[in-house]
Amino acid sequence: MKKWYEKSGAEGDAVISTRIRLARNLRTHPFPGKLNPAGRAAVEQMVKEAVLACVQTLPEQFHFVEMDQLSQTEAVSLVERHLVSPEFIADRRGRGLILTDDESISIMINEEDHLRIQVMREGFGLKEAFRTADRLDSLLNSRLEFAFDERLGYLTQCPTNLGTGMRASLMLHLPALQESGMMSRYGTNLTKLGIALRGLYGEGSKPAGAVYQLSNQVTLGLSEQEAIANLESIAMQIIAQERSARSAMVKSLEMQDAISRSLGILRSAKLLSNEEFMKLISNVRLGVSTGLIRTVRYDTVNQLMVEVQPATVSLASGGQLAAGERDAVRAKIVSQRLTRKEDPDDVSV
Amino acid sequence: MKKWYEKSGAEGDAVISTRIRLARNLRTHPFPGKLNPAGRAAVEQMVKEAVLACVQTLPEQFHFVEMDQLSQTEAVSLVERHLVSPEFIADRRGRGLILTDDESISIMINEEDHLRIQVMREGFGLKEAFRTADRLDSLLNSRLEFAFDERLGYLTQCPTNLGTGMRASLMLHLPALQESGMMSRYGTNLTKLGIALRGLYGEGSKPAGAVYQLSNQVTLGLSEQEAIANLESIAMQIIAQERSARSAMVKSLEMQDAISRSLGILRSAKLLSNEEFMKLISNVRLGVSTGLIRTVRYDTVNQLMVEVQPATVSLASGGQLAAGERDAVRAKIVSQRLTRKEDPDDVSV
Repeated sequence: MKKWYEKSGAEGDAVISTRIRLARNLRTHPFPGKLNPAGRAAVEQMVKEAVLACVQTLPEQFHFVEMDQLSQTEAVSLVERHLVSPEFIADRRGRGLILTDDESISIMINEEDHLRIQVMREGFGLKEAFRTADRLDSLLNSRLEFAFDERLGYLTQCPTNLGTGMRASLMLHLPALQESGMMSRYGTNLTKLGIALRGLYGEGSKPAGAVYQLSNQVTLGLSEQEAIANLESIAMQIIAQERSARSAMVKSLEMQDAISRSLGILRSAKLLSNEEFMKLISNVRLGVSTGLIRTVRYDTVNQLMVEVQPATVSLASGGQLAAGERDAVRAKIVSQRLTRKEDPDDVSV
Repeated sequence: MKKWYEKSGAEGDAVISTRIRLARNLRTHPFPGKLNPAGRAAVEQMVKEAVLACVQTLPEQFHFVEMDQLSQTEAVSLVERHLVSPEFIADRRGRGLILTDDESISIMINEEDHLRIQVMREGFGLKEAFRTADRLDSLLNSRLEFAFDERLGYLTQCPTNLGTGMRASLMLHLPALQESGMMSRYGTNLTKLGIALRGLYGEGSKPAGAVYQLSNQVTLGLSEQEAIANLESIAMQIIAQERSARSAMVKSLEMQDAISRSLGILRSAKLLSNEEFMKLISNVRLGVSTGLIRTVRYDTVNQLMVEVQPATVSLASGGQLAAGERDAVRAKIVSQRLTRKEDPDDVSV
């Protein structure tokens, strides 16, 4: 079964994926921050049983993962696959994860809230992802009593989630806007509209791979549908501007050179750091979207971007790898995925 | 007809080419440095007629080029193709060039000496090249009276050529010895043996492309055969050390990575400076010689190294090119030559 991140979806040139996250808490227990170990264990057990019973009627296969049973590499790989938050694995005691085979649905137990229901989708699909999350939420609500206030809506540990408890976000690839230096201006303007735009990988003004996360910040005073429509409309404007900036950008021979070399290096490298990979794959993605590169598909790029992250690449090789070994394994995977089967590798090592 | 530099020859992994040069002067005229324009013209006419008459019995087709009729680009391209010296084109008045179709035989008229007979060959072939030069020299001697002294040998304008007037040289590719940092030590030791080892392209301790010229410095007190045997024996030792250093060097994954990427970049670049080309093609040559690269041949590499030099690449495009245009044309030629016909260029610009 293909994972969600092994596919590409609508507006795939600029939108890598869509995420809907719902924060829910049990009326019967204090927020996780106020729970002692026994309390956390009790909540975990209760939620686990309820969820696994609820989802039996769904077509997807759900699995339960006891977080403190995982190795550190396995835990970090969950973050790299966008299944859990970095905070969730910082202290794994009394925390559990429920997820589907294709990793598109996951429920963190005892993160900041008792439940964090998350639905991921390839491409631009906010409404579809919300529909799935909403259906699951309703199902769970039949067995679990959620903390809900008529006036405030869903109660959450952090007041920024109060109300819908929903965070909708899009993972966007914005290489041309990043290159134009206009990203910082976007950030300020979007804040006024209740929208946040942040780099997803790495710190600094130029996030690795030019991957950004666009998400709603307002959960109080408007419905989920309104928040999603708002986010959707702003995303479409950003995507249109990104596309127009790309068309201008790839007219330069320097950019064509950078794009073409990036694919050449990804195919031929025998050692590849994650940082260099992110920079080069971003160029390749830009090349695919502008028609310069015709032999690579978005789903291949999307898959690679998850597959060769440090912990995930280590896991695929069956355990811990030193950084140097990891760079060699990463280079091999990348070269295989990006080289057509008809072209044998002509540098034999 | 293939030019000599479009082929590869004996010991082609380390020896790009062989050159024999004989300096000869007419007994009847002062050395070129002492000639006025009329005198230079007279010598040029005299040598030209004698040479073209002499060589009629030879299988090769010889052509005469009036140097001051050439454009600067054409003149520089002759230097890049190793047909004439840089000094020869610095002032082209009263100078002529005779050369064969395959450019393996050339005679500079009124360079430092009245005649500079030069024979070039692919690979390691000192004896063969000398045989050709010697045959031509004897032929010319039947029509031209060379300045010769029983005790000193051939008289030349510069005393360093006195005696045999012969400079034998090998163009060597020594990337592993260069990388090991041992080249400077070689230089000092070889001087004591009457041999010079110099970088052929660029200044500094690391010549571009790791291409070196090994040549005899002694022309007095030993025969041409002795000088050649001496050079040959030293060359074989250097080649053996280079080969052994290569075997050790390419065991490292970093080096394999550099070699594989170099081919990847040369195939995919859309802009390529001469400096970067030289660095990358040197790595590719190393890859071919160590068996890491199996789809590229030495003759392709040798040909490219001449073909994409600045003036020669401009000429092939029919004239003057700005540096930026030249880098684009160079990238295109390199990519075409190094990409197998079965693999279509998959970055379309």
